[in-house]
Amino acid sequence: MSFDTISYDVADGICTITLNRPEQLNAFTVQMANELVEAFTHVNDDDAARAVVVTGAGRAFCAGMDLSVEGNVFGLGTDPAPTLQDMHERLDDPRILERVRDTGGRVSLAIYACTKPVIGAINGPAVGIGATMTLPMDIRLASEKARIGFVFGRIGIVPEACSSWFLPRIVGISRALEWTYTADILTVDEVYDAGLVRAVHSPDELLPAAYTLAHRFVDGHSPVGVALTRQMMWRNSAQPHPVEAHRVDSLAMYYTSFGDGVEGVAAFNEKRDADFGSLVSRDMPPFYPWQD
Amino acid sequence: MSFDTISYDVADGICTITLNRPEQLNAFTVQMANELVEAFTHVNDDDAARAVVVTGAGRAFCAGMDLSVEGNVFGLGTDPAPTLQDMHERLDDPRILERVRDTGGRVSLAIYACTKPVIGAINGPAVGIGATMTLPMDIRLASEKARIGFVFGRIGIVPEACSSWFLPRIVGISRALEWTYTADILTVDEVYDAGLVRAVHSPDELLPAAYTLAHRFVDGHSPVGVALTRQMMWRNSAQPHPVEAHRVDSLAMYYTSFGDGVEGVAAFNEKRDADFGSLVSRDMPPFYPWQD
Amino acid sequence: MSFDTISYDVADGICTITLNRPEQLNAFTVQMANELVEAFTHVNDDDAARAVVVTGAGRAFCAGMDLSVEGNVFGLGTDPAPTLQDMHERLDDPRILERVRDTGGRVSLAIYACTKPVIGAINGPAVGIGATMTLPMDIRLASEKARIGFVFGRIGIVPEACSSWFLPRIVGISRALEWTYTADILTVDEVYDAGLVRAVHSPDELLPAAYTLAHRFVDGHSPVGVALTRQMMWRNSAQPHPVEAHRVDSLAMYYTSFGDGVEGVAAFNEKRDADFGSLVSRDMPPFYPWQD
Repeated sequence: MSFDTISYDVADGICTITLNRPEQLNAFTVQMANELVEAFTHVNDDDAARAVVVTGAGRAFCAGMDLSVEGNVFGLGTDPAPTLQDMHERLDDPRILERVRDTGGRVSLAIYACTKPVIGAINGPAVGIGATMTLPMDIRLASEKARIGFVFGRIGIVPEACSSWFLPRIVGISRALEWTYTADILTVDEVYDAGLVRAVHSPDELLPAAYTLAHRFVDGHSPVGVALTRQMMWRNSAQPHPVEAHRVDSLAMYYTSFGDGVEGVAAFNEKRDADFGSLVSRDMPPFYPWQD
Repeated sequence: MSFDTISYDVADGICTITLNRPEQLNAFTVQMANELVEAFTHVNDDDAARAVVVTGAGRAFCAGMDLSVEGNVFGLGTDPAPTLQDMHERLDDPRILERVRDTGGRVSLAIYACTKPVIGAINGPAVGIGATMTLPMDIRLASEKARIGFVFGRIGIVPEACSSWFLPRIVGISRALEWTYTADILTVDEVYDAGLVRAVHSPDELLPAAYTLAHRFVDGHSPVGVALTRQMMWRNSAQPHPVEAHRVDSLAMYYTSFGDGVEGVAAFNEKRDADFGSLVSRDMPPFYPWQD
Repeated sequence: MSFDTISYDVADGICTITLNRPEQLNAFTVQMANELVEAFTHVNDDDAARAVVVTGAGRAFCAGMDLSVEGNVFGLGTDPAPTLQDMHERLDDPRILERVRDTGGRVSLAIYACTKPVIGAINGPAVGIGATMTLPMDIRLASEKARIGFVFGRIGIVPEACSSWFLPRIVGISRALEWTYTADILTVDEVYDAGLVRAVHSPDELLPAAYTLAHRFVDGHSPVGVALTRQMMWRNSAQPHPVEAHRVDSLAMYYTSFGDGVEGVAAFNEKRDADFGSLVSRDMPPFYPWQD
């Protein structure tokens, strides 16, 4: 995969997606959003990539929306962009309501739907969409150089990228409100204490730690088993009753028991390493995705 | 606003709501519930009030339901109150089922729907409804003199005021069950360790700390942006799928980007403080509230 | 109650359910699942049992599914068991989809529906279903000898027993994913630090601690009040809006106020211990269960 604003590299079973506008501190654009959605969709079918690590080129992770590029906020592609007058007059217009799509949210939903473990390696400042895009990742590691800011309140707008769904789940409603109300830039100590990041690493150790963790998540494990585990945890935990999980569990256990589970149990009984043959590109069960 | 059982004072941009029956340790009555609902509804249209601090007059925060006042429990206004016999015979009667309303829950839902940040400043004992009414507040600060008790089990009834929705979100299901099963009076250390309160302050420092925090939440920020942020965090985080947040985000980003966001981006680019002009009383977007 | 794979003993108001295949490290079978479902259903009508403690006989809590017993995985009772070929051809067959039921999930749902506080006393290794079956318990205590492993990934299958609903609620989504991705055996320190277990006890102190806690939960409290509290916390906290809790609260307050609340308030006013007369077997209100 070749992109302009990000890079996509697979090595040793791990896909690294790098936000790659270092001169602009990897500031986010509609093009970057489109490329991230494409990358996170593509990786589902890329069997050479068993897990994903997301990081930034240069000294920043992502400095937020690039406000110098016109039309970035919505990415509606409307021409001309709607005016405040339009909005007041047309916000009840179903054609507007149905088309308006928060750009960052499209990225968050693509990460949410990813079938590989996703680790954020926050190498430097992560601000605005640079902070919220990390929330649908499974785990965040931070460099000592990281700073995280949910700064939307500073410019009179609101937290986006589905962060109102993700952030309270990760750090609790009180801290989520405090961070978004104050719109402060947070230190790594603050975000570590709150459980937002798993660990803080020296700059040199950040990516090695991310790769080590990624390998622990996938090496020797069933690709389809890992994919279902990710989607089951994210999706089922938000349901209003555990019976929703039970419905999915029943089918997922049924499918995997007759899939990679056959080899898994054999290897277990024979006290040898398992050699799983499933491929996410080919073998996801027909009931997946069960919710969309 | 003038009330009998509470006071409502706005100064320096912050509304202070004080439970104000100090001789009765601010014990809760149906009248107090009605006044709190009215106050939390009124504050939404009171543009001079940018945030709300809730505290108690005298040495208690709230000693719980005033059991010496008849009819307090339900506030149904039925005359005569239903008997146990009635209840057994009539609980399937739709007229009963539709009318019965937990008094504390009416207050909790009004706080939940508030469009200003709400900080609980728990100055002393907070027991029963005195404890549960603080749960829909965004953040709780406690005086060293505070004691908190979810004591319903002591008198054979159940936790109310939507606390079964709020408490497990704040302290986890295991601690929520332990605290409501035992019905113990908890120390400030216990509730701080569990994350129920943000910090413990000396009695003299409690209200100053609450006001300092309130100012950090709202000063220089967009009133409509703050209001939407509060409602997005509380409402979206409980939805079964992040796409529900995405729908709201898209409209909220659209609206605020052409609202206070215009000034916010201009001020950011010009490296000056923003001067936001939105008013919650006038400018909440037409899609709000999106859930009720 | 007499069972083959578990024991069910009531003493001093507490029911102890013991996984009882010590020679097999209490490995789980379909029979054990059926017996646990029966035990957790029976205890709801056993008024002599006010709370439940679950532990294992011998040195293990539960070593996971007994893979040496055929047909354990699904417990479909189909004969012959479906093949992979069947599955590929028949997974869209409604007769399969409706019948397939994860065995562990049937146990989890029975524990979820229990009307008595449930305490897990994890005396030794708890692996696979041995770990996931503890998640719907209200609180877990661990012996220093405990080890907990969500090891499904080791054999190519997925976490089950509704653990994708329960585990992220207890330890957060990031840790739930890490533990299930790695499929590692966790130490008691790791699970204590993550909040999975309330406390770690010496082997001799584990059961006494569980019984002490159980007595604090129920002694002198209203049986129906405790039952409703448990069900309200678990069920309401997962709803998408607090008004769902308000509906239940209103009825539960109404019912208990005219039930054990009459004695509770009288005892409170007379400064004496209450003597509650409700029985779960007889007095659960007609609106319970409100969700199934």
